[in-house]
Formats: sequence, structure tokens, C-alpha cells
Amino acid sequence: MSAGPPVSKGLDHIVVDRSSISWVGGETGDLVYRGFDVRDLVPGIPYESAVHLILQGDPPPVDPSPEVTEALRQHRAPRPAVERVVDALAPSLSPLDALRTILSALGDGSFGYPPTIEQGYRLIAQTPVLLARFVRRAGGRDPVAAQPHLSHAENYLTMLTGEVPPPERAAALDAYLVLLADHGMNASTFALRIAVSTQSDFASAATAALAVLKGPVHGGAPSRVSDMLDAVGSPDQADRWIQEKVADGEVLMGFGHRAYKTDDPRAVVLHGIAKRVADPARFELAETVERSALAALRAAKPNARLYTNVEFWSAVVLEAVGLPRELFTPTFAVARTAGWTAHALEQAANNRLIRPDIEYVGPAKGRRWPRPFAGRVP
Amino acid sequence: MSAGPPVSKGLDHIVVDRSSISWVGGETGDLVYRGFDVRDLVPGIPYESAVHLILQGDPPPVDPSPEVTEALRQHRAPRPAVERVVDALAPSLSPLDALRTILSALGDGSFGYPPTIEQGYRLIAQTPVLLARFVRRAGGRDPVAAQPHLSHAENYLTMLTGEVPPPERAAALDAYLVLLADHGMNASTFALRIAVSTQSDFASAATAALAVLKGPVHGGAPSRVSDMLDAVGSPDQADRWIQEKVADGEVLMGFGHRAYKTDDPRAVVLHGIAKRVADPARFELAETVERSALAALRAAKPNARLYTNVEFWSAVVLEAVGLPRELFTPTFAVARTAGWTAHALEQAANNRLIRPDIEYVGPAKGRRWPRPFAGRVP
Repeated sequence: MSAGPPVSKGLDHIVVDRSSISWVGGETGDLVYRGFDVRDLVPGIPYESAVHLILQGDPPPVDPSPEVTEALRQHRAPRPAVERVVDALAPSLSPLDALRTILSALGDGSFGYPPTIEQGYRLIAQTPVLLARFVRRAGGRDPVAAQPHLSHAENYLTMLTGEVPPPERAAALDAYLVLLADHGMNASTFALRIAVSTQSDFASAATAALAVLKGPVHGGAPSRVSDMLDAVGSPDQADRWIQEKVADGEVLMGFGHRAYKTDDPRAVVLHGIAKRVADPARFELAETVERSALAALRAAKPNARLYTNVEFWSAVVLEAVGLPRELFTPTFAVARTAGWTAHALEQAANNRLIRPDIEYVGPAKGRRWPRPFAGRVP
Repeated sequence: MSAGPPVSKGLDHIVVDRSSISWVGGETGDLVYRGFDVRDLVPGIPYESAVHLILQGDPPPVDPSPEVTEALRQHRAPRPAVERVVDALAPSLSPLDALRTILSALGDGSFGYPPTIEQGYRLIAQTPVLLARFVRRAGGRDPVAAQPHLSHAENYLTMLTGEVPPPERAAALDAYLVLLADHGMNASTFALRIAVSTQSDFASAATAALAVLKGPVHGGAPSRVSDMLDAVGSPDQADRWIQEKVADGEVLMGFGHRAYKTDDPRAVVLHGIAKRVADPARFELAETVERSALAALRAAKPNARLYTNVEFWSAVVLEAVGLPRELFTPTFAVARTAGWTAHALEQAANNRLIRPDIEYVGPAKGRRWPRPFAGRVP
């Protein structure tokens, strides 16, 4: 250890910028988009109206936002060159690995710098379309054409399954998409803003964001909640199963968050939605596991202020929507393209290269190569 | 403006971690890899030995590093599934857009978390191989097979052109690759470390890094130096051309750097290499433009401490190596895969989620949606 400047490993509590997009109240359990508490908006507003609010700062004149609805519909047809890349992806790829390459493939020079709201609509519209295309083909099925008369959520499910979803499933997905649409500063949004800060193009920035979201510490773990519920099996097994895991020091999926030191409002809202749309037995299992886990975690770490995070009830809701587990994190990304667009626009509007320092603690300058060079001097 | 916590927009002088890999002495004009001044290493050590030093911390037992030479040769054959993605890319893509998708396509589950040195060798080996494949096919030519008996630099040029390069060109490229192999904390390396901090896979992290490197403020501009030299045309035009641009407030490419407030050591070394390998008339033009630009910039901004940056002489050297301009930044990435690997390994060895804060300055919580929701409640 050296006695250099203070090191902010993790950058906790370092404020990297000001933003008008969303507020995460970690102590109070708040998530606010442009002044609107998400608990007042969900369930209820369609994703198209949330996109309007997040990108433009105010609610649309009517719901769903006519401007966003029209823009997303117009952009549902990707360029053939991008579809060719999607069709060349190995069917064995995870949808999340595929989605990273899909977002990169969007970057063909048409997403320039500075980012524009039109580019954002294109990204938001095409992410689920291209993801569904990959999933269909990877499963040996023909792609389903985009459906211009359907909402964003309905179209995504239809392009995945080939059938227009029942209204309650589409509404549950709509609610999920709104709740996950933005979340202040987080690791993927931060990576996106770094890319924009070098004046890289918006498709590159979105690709960087997805690459970071993929990490299980950020967005890549909700499927493990479903795996955990399966492993527990039935409510009467929950206490024993959970206590064993906690005693073994294993991490339980779906609890704890860097920002929230109280209830995550998204988890609270999704809990309510799960109650309405999930299979009752699955819902009862999930509630029992949640109760057991919180009791065991709080007994083991009385000072840790651990609460259920968004992943736990996301998993139960996305199961009820009919999505397979490997699509949970990609669907998180589908939602977050709204926030990524807003942050890209905000970063570019008042841009400055984001470039921290690192303290060098390696060998001092002055080492000598142990022998003469072998040649190769130009 | 609010009276919140201090905002570190750009994160200047915020120290995000400690690192033993390289030291950038911005005030003294130093770049040190593991204790070795790059001015003592270049030209002279082969890239394979620099990779060994940067990844393992000490020089190899002989030059070029037998271990790295063998590892890079073994990894020169990409998986057929990745080659299929490369072959599906539109020939009209810029090589830099193509390379982002190529790096993403490497991520097929075989680059897991935590990153390993073996994954690093694979990334380092395959980046130029797949890039050359794209460039050949985009130009309507057949790919050239990897050449096991050639060095990393020689193999890259051979796979691009179909011919083994003259020794002085390979040596000049080798020197460039060593000089650009790492550079402390910078925006692309930072994005890579953020991806690793979420426990995302190494291919995702490298993709994020490339997405950020692509920005002209970071790595995406050396080709503009060549464009500038073309625009000036001849040494006797330099003063007039430069003074007009400076008077118009235009940015001159190749001058100024966030870190260096004196000579960039890489620019100094590349200047010397350019003198040996560049066409004499081009070299004279470049030297004259450099002199004019520094004089004009210092007259216009006497306090800015502006010096020639690495891009300026990189462009002249890469021209002399025979690379087309659209490969300048991708070749920067080819070099930097070494540093990215070292930083990924270092981040993972002592990992913590990198997640700063942002200060919310939007409308206060409590706004109400202007009408009842239209339905769609699950």
C-alpha cells in the first residue's frame, strides 16, 4: 500500500454528473422518473408513455403516446444487413450473448454522434424485434413478422411466440418494462455515458451498456431466482433449504442492492403484479421463500439492511408472462433501452470525456531489460 | 444548480483503483510498463515479449517470449461459428464497426468470468486474424490463412495483404504495437473494468472497451491526421493552412492529451521510427505541419501546454507500414488487447462493482399523471 491520493474503489458516493432523468432514493425506497413516482405509474401507463416521459421530460398528451407509438412502429423493420448478421449467429448462443452482437450489428454508421431521439426510437423498437428473430431461429422456427397494430409489449411477445398474448400477460410485461426503463446511475448506464463521452456512436454505447448489464452482479441473475424456487420445490421446504444455504455462506439470489437500504419500490410493485398474474402455487412458493430468506438473512447479518431486490419478483412476473429464463436479462435490456437513450442524449448535450485516474503501485521506473534486443529495429 | 455534493464531471483526478500494470507520468512525459520505461524498450522488444511483461509482470526468459509466441500461434484459428458471423457482416461496414461486432461474436460462453490469461491470449491472437478476414472479404478478396511461423505483427500484415511484409515494416508495426499496448487508466480500459466489475464475461468487457475506444476523443481519430497532412499538401503550405484553421477555432488533429502536459513519450519514439520508415517527403511534411501547429497552438493558447500526441506520429508510422487509414484505430485496438487483458485480470483479482452516483436535478417527486390510466392493468 502506498500513501497516495484517496482511492475510491467502486466509486461509491462519487457523484459523476447531474441528471434530470430519474431519482433513486436508496434510503427512502423511491424511484422517480422526471418527478413521477413509479408506484403511481405502475401498473397503468403503457411503456410507450413511459418512453415519452423519460425521453422528453413530460407525459404525452394522451396514452399511449401517439408520437412514440408511431415511431416504434415505423422502426420495427430492421435493415436486411442486420438481419443477416442475426441469422448467422450460432443457435447455441445464449440470447444475452446474441443480443450483445445484435446491438453491435445495429452500428453500421447510421447511429452517429451525437445521438438523436430518432436513433433512440430505432434502438428501442429493434432490440426486441431482433432478439425475437434470433430466439425463433435458434429454436428452429421461422421468424414472426412485426405486427404494426400491436403495442411494444404485445409485439415482442407475439414475435417470440407467434401468438398475440392474452391481455393480462401483455399488461404484466408492460408494467415490468415501465418499472425497469431507467434507474439513475448504474453500471451499464455509466458505461454507456463513458462511450458517449468519447463521442463514440450510440450503437457502440448501447453495446457497451449491454456488455456491462450482462454481469450477474448487475442485470444477469434474475433467472437464478427461478432456479432457486425450483430447487426449494415447495413452501414447506423453504425454511430448511434457505437456512442451509445461509449457514453455508452461499449468496441467495434476489436480495440486497447497492442503492436500496429499504424496500426496492420495483420489487413492491412487481410483488403485487405477481399476485394477480402468477400461478397461485408458484406465487405462494415465492412469498414463502422471500419470507424465509429475509428472516434468515437478517438473523445472519443483523446490520446489513437486506431487502428483496427487483430481481426476485421480476423472475416471478416474467415466468407468468411466459418468458423462458434465458430471456429474463435480455428483456431487462429491452426495457432499459429507454433509459439508455435518455442518458445518451443528456450526456451528449453537455459532454466531457469521462476518464478517472488510477494509482500506479507497480515496480518503480528504471528496470532494465535483461539482455540486448534481438534485432527487429525498423 | 443545486447545492448538493461535489460533482466530478469527467472524474478528473478521481483515483478509481490501484494498479501495477503501467504508469502514465503526465507531468514528466513517462510511460512505464511494470517498471520499464517504454523509451528503453522501443524499438527493440517484440510485441510477444511486451505481452509477456504486461500480463505476467516480468520479462520473458528470452525474446520473443516463447510462451506468448506459442500461445498466440495456437489461438490463431477462430471457431467456425465466429467466422460465419464475420462473413455475414456487410462489406460496407467500417472495419472499426466490424471489429466491435467481431469481439462480441467471440463471446459464445467460452470467455467466462473470471477472465483468464488463456482467454487473453485468445483475444490477442484472434483480434487481428478476424479483422483481417473481414477486411479481405469486404474488399472482395479471399481470406489469407494464418501463418504459424510468423510473428504476431508479421502475421497480421500477411493476413491483410497476402504477402509477408518487408522486415522494416514488420518491425515498425511491432514497435507501434508495443507502444500502444497499455496506457494506465483510460476510457476504454475503464469501461472494460466496469464490465468485469459486474462479473460480466471477458468478451463482453473487450467489446465494451472497443465501443469506447471507437470515440474520436479517445482512439478514433488518427486517420484524421493523415487527412490533415493530405489537405496541407506540401510543407510550404503548412503555416498558412494551420493558421487559418486555428483562426477559425477548428481543432487540429494530433495535439493535446488529457494526461500529458509535456511530450507524449510514444509520440517521441514514433517520430524517430517515422524518420526511418516513412517516405522522406511525407516525413518532411509531417515535421513541418507539427512545427507549424505547435507554434500556432501555443500562440493562440499560451497556457494550454499543448504537445504532439500519440495519434500524430502513429498516423505517419502506420501509413509507412502500409495500413489504410480505416485500419488505424482497429490496429490501436489490436495493440491494446494486451493491456485490456492485464486490466481484466487485475480487476477480477480484487473485484468490486464500479457504480458511482449521479445527482438528480429534475422535477421534484409528486407530479401526477394528467389523466386516469386507460386500462391495461394486469
